[in-house]
Amino acid sequence: MGSLVEELAGALGAGQVSTEEELLARYAVDQAPVLDFQLPEAVVFAGSVTDVQAVVRLCAAHNVAVVARGAGTGVSGGAHASRNCVVLSLERMNRILDLNPDDETAVVEPGVVNAALNEAAAEHGLMYAPDPASFRSSTIGGNVATNAGGLRCAKYGVTRDSVLALDVVLADGSLIHTGHQTFKGVAGYDLTGLFVGSEGTLGIVVAATVRLKYLPRDVHTIAAFYPDFRQAAAGVLAVGRARVQPAIMELLDGGTLAQLDDLHGSDLSSRGRSLLLIQTDGFGAAAEADVVRSVLAAGGATVSTESTAEAEQLVELRRNSRGVEVDDEYRVGEDVAVPRSRLVDYVAALEDLAATHGVSLKVVAHAGDGNLHPTFWIDRQDSAVDADAMGRLNLALDASINAALEMGGTITGEHGIGQYKLRWLGLEQAEPVRELQRRIKELFDPAGILNPGKAI
Amino acid sequence: MGSLVEELAGALGAGQVSTEEELLARYAVDQAPVLDFQLPEAVVFAGSVTDVQAVVRLCAAHNVAVVARGAGTGVSGGAHASRNCVVLSLERMNRILDLNPDDETAVVEPGVVNAALNEAAAEHGLMYAPDPASFRSSTIGGNVATNAGGLRCAKYGVTRDSVLALDVVLADGSLIHTGHQTFKGVAGYDLTGLFVGSEGTLGIVVAATVRLKYLPRDVHTIAAFYPDFRQAAAGVLAVGRARVQPAIMELLDGGTLAQLDDLHGSDLSSRGRSLLLIQTDGFGAAAEADVVRSVLAAGGATVSTESTAEAEQLVELRRNSRGVEVDDEYRVGEDVAVPRSRLVDYVAALEDLAATHGVSLKVVAHAGDGNLHPTFWIDRQDSAVDADAMGRLNLALDASINAALEMGGTITGEHGIGQYKLRWLGLEQAEPVRELQRRIKELFDPAGILNPGKAI
Repeated sequence: MGSLVEELAGALGAGQVSTEEELLARYAVDQAPVLDFQLPEAVVFAGSVTDVQAVVRLCAAHNVAVVARGAGTGVSGGAHASRNCVVLSLERMNRILDLNPDDETAVVEPGVVNAALNEAAAEHGLMYAPDPASFRSSTIGGNVATNAGGLRCAKYGVTRDSVLALDVVLADGSLIHTGHQTFKGVAGYDLTGLFVGSEGTLGIVVAATVRLKYLPRDVHTIAAFYPDFRQAAAGVLAVGRARVQPAIMELLDGGTLAQLDDLHGSDLSSRGRSLLLIQTDGFGAAAEADVVRSVLAAGGATVSTESTAEAEQLVELRRNSRGVEVDDEYRVGEDVAVPRSRLVDYVAALEDLAATHGVSLKVVAHAGDGNLHPTFWIDRQDSAVDADAMGRLNLALDASINAALEMGGTITGEHGIGQYKLRWLGLEQAEPVRELQRRIKELFDPAGILNPGKAI
Repeated sequence: MGSLVEELAGALGAGQVSTEEELLARYAVDQAPVLDFQLPEAVVFAGSVTDVQAVVRLCAAHNVAVVARGAGTGVSGGAHASRNCVVLSLERMNRILDLNPDDETAVVEPGVVNAALNEAAAEHGLMYAPDPASFRSSTIGGNVATNAGGLRCAKYGVTRDSVLALDVVLADGSLIHTGHQTFKGVAGYDLTGLFVGSEGTLGIVVAATVRLKYLPRDVHTIAAFYPDFRQAAAGVLAVGRARVQPAIMELLDGGTLAQLDDLHGSDLSSRGRSLLLIQTDGFGAAAEADVVRSVLAAGGATVSTESTAEAEQLVELRRNSRGVEVDDEYRVGEDVAVPRSRLVDYVAALEDLAATHGVSLKVVAHAGDGNLHPTFWIDRQDSAVDADAMGRLNLALDASINAALEMGGTITGEHGIGQYKLRWLGLEQAEPVRELQRRIKELFDPAGILNPGKAI
């Protein structure tokens, strides 16, 4: 391994290769639970496509795994270091190479932060639509690797829907270009789609051509408070039945409201036991908001039209509701999605599961997509008198996964399988489908050096 | 072969297998130009998934190619029979298996006609968005096989964007299920996306779960006539700069208008040399139409707000502008796409090419997508005195393809490579990318029995 590190430093420049203990530890994991902590042998900071090619070639020659990484904000362990690996950080490849306001496209290096692209696009009345909660720090490369979702997917689509073309370094160090610079294009197989969401296991994305959408002229935010969670979930269906497509439709349960109040001094809990937060946008935003308000009021909600500042604040609180976890809790959380018609049933199942297993529950959901992030938790203080707290949390978690699958759902709506969710993948996908994916992996990466043990 | 036909008839029932000459000829080709006419050995009409599995297994055992086919409305030869093949028609598998208005999804057999699904969805205020010109006769299976586009893709996406899950019969006759029933889902590699657009070369789609969108409440149609084609193309960019997203944005040149007038007795040509036909829809349709009208008028258009009947008729004429080709012409046509900023340049290049090669030109374009269907043509009467007419047409055609590629475009925006466009694929995709696709094909279909010689 010493020899590989020396060769890497020789190929790239000493400032781009580190074996410093503190740095190795920081780059050993992303934000997911850690099942099998491994320190990488080295962290390499690529500055160019040529750097990435050199790293992959050297690692291939030494048969050493390469774990590519953006900002490390993933929550499924897709960027966790594997044994004896080299972590390849793409953070420094952070240039917007092109942004053409007439084409409504941009070409970016993988380390460009989502928010930075959005800022650049906004100058031209455009936006990059996928907006994961981590958008202020996560990179386009990481978003592509996980096919990231976000708040406004129901209307604007997920990462896949915004990616037109990719430059990818393959396992042998060669560089290919997939896709098309145009909005439409159907020449050959959809290799671009195959790389999106493949978590760096098939190749390393070194540039992406993305489609931009129009920044909406008008935005209306509606806060609907409900006396209970199931009624709030029913509100999502009611808006759907009115055939209105909001840009954002977020569901927050009582546990989440209480926690936000604790952390931010807000008074959300006093207004209801559950919040359905809806934004309509575009030329029809006001008319759509009118329909939404009347539909929700008819369903038992206390509907308030927020002033602009309050509305912004509520959406901001929601965007920040990931990352508010506090150190005095044990918790497990997930990312299931269910068909929309099952939202109320699933929310009811979650509440029943929490009661059955004697754990607390909080849920936020991208409800327009049927994508829920339930968290089961327990105070660390309680757990001191209850040795089996983690056991009960995990039972509730597993049961919540099974309930989603029984309702026709998926174990991951937007976070990816990574390393953490591999244990459930066999519950969702039949063996022949998994085997097909293993064979695709083998075709792209016969030596298995690209992010081994992830995604499939 | 006699033995295979007997075995097929035995496995499926005599009424499902035909070797009748007239039928073989009808099922030998789709609507593309024919380069290499082959009669199939038999045409098989599958009625169920089990039928499809039986056909694939028997053909595999006899090492005979299977060409799957929907309505045969493709224009790239993706469904042309290959030598000694069995044509597998999926027309009879035409049931809508499920349509859940709360989930906003439908599960359909491959032979369901696009318009039939839309009719069923409309009862619930929903629509299936992809709307190829052939929507009244083409099937969802065929649309999936070619990743079909249509008029409203710029706003609502192409077929890929509406497909959530697939049931697929593989080359060994086994059945797999890919994707998810939910709007979002990122478990494993995107096999669904790999099958969409693969033209029956990787597997045979026997069911699709599709997402439905909301039928717009309000629709406004704007007809903008221009004195020349380049100005009309510039209008597309002007609407984009106003950051308005129409549902439909179709560009028709003078040649197309004249032909429509000839065929339908309309007076379009008297109103201008080019037509930009725009529909806005949804709650903001009226406000968007106002912006569009003022932007286009400022760009030199004569803008009329059509009455509803006239508007419907114009869109109808446009939808029918494919299929108006007449027998007294020689013609070649294409399906390129260019980045939007190059629309005006590309339209100018087409006009120059037509002049250079002494051929007539007509163009319709899904202009919002930069997707153009130019046709070069010449009267049969002229060609009688000009032996090289077809030669000149083909020179113009090849030059138009090259011009699109030089502008960063693609050789096929929505029709697919099929058999007809294979000759140009090497101009667009580098050899390593083509080789990767060949290896994927080999992985899925090692014996090469699924629609050989197509797509890649």
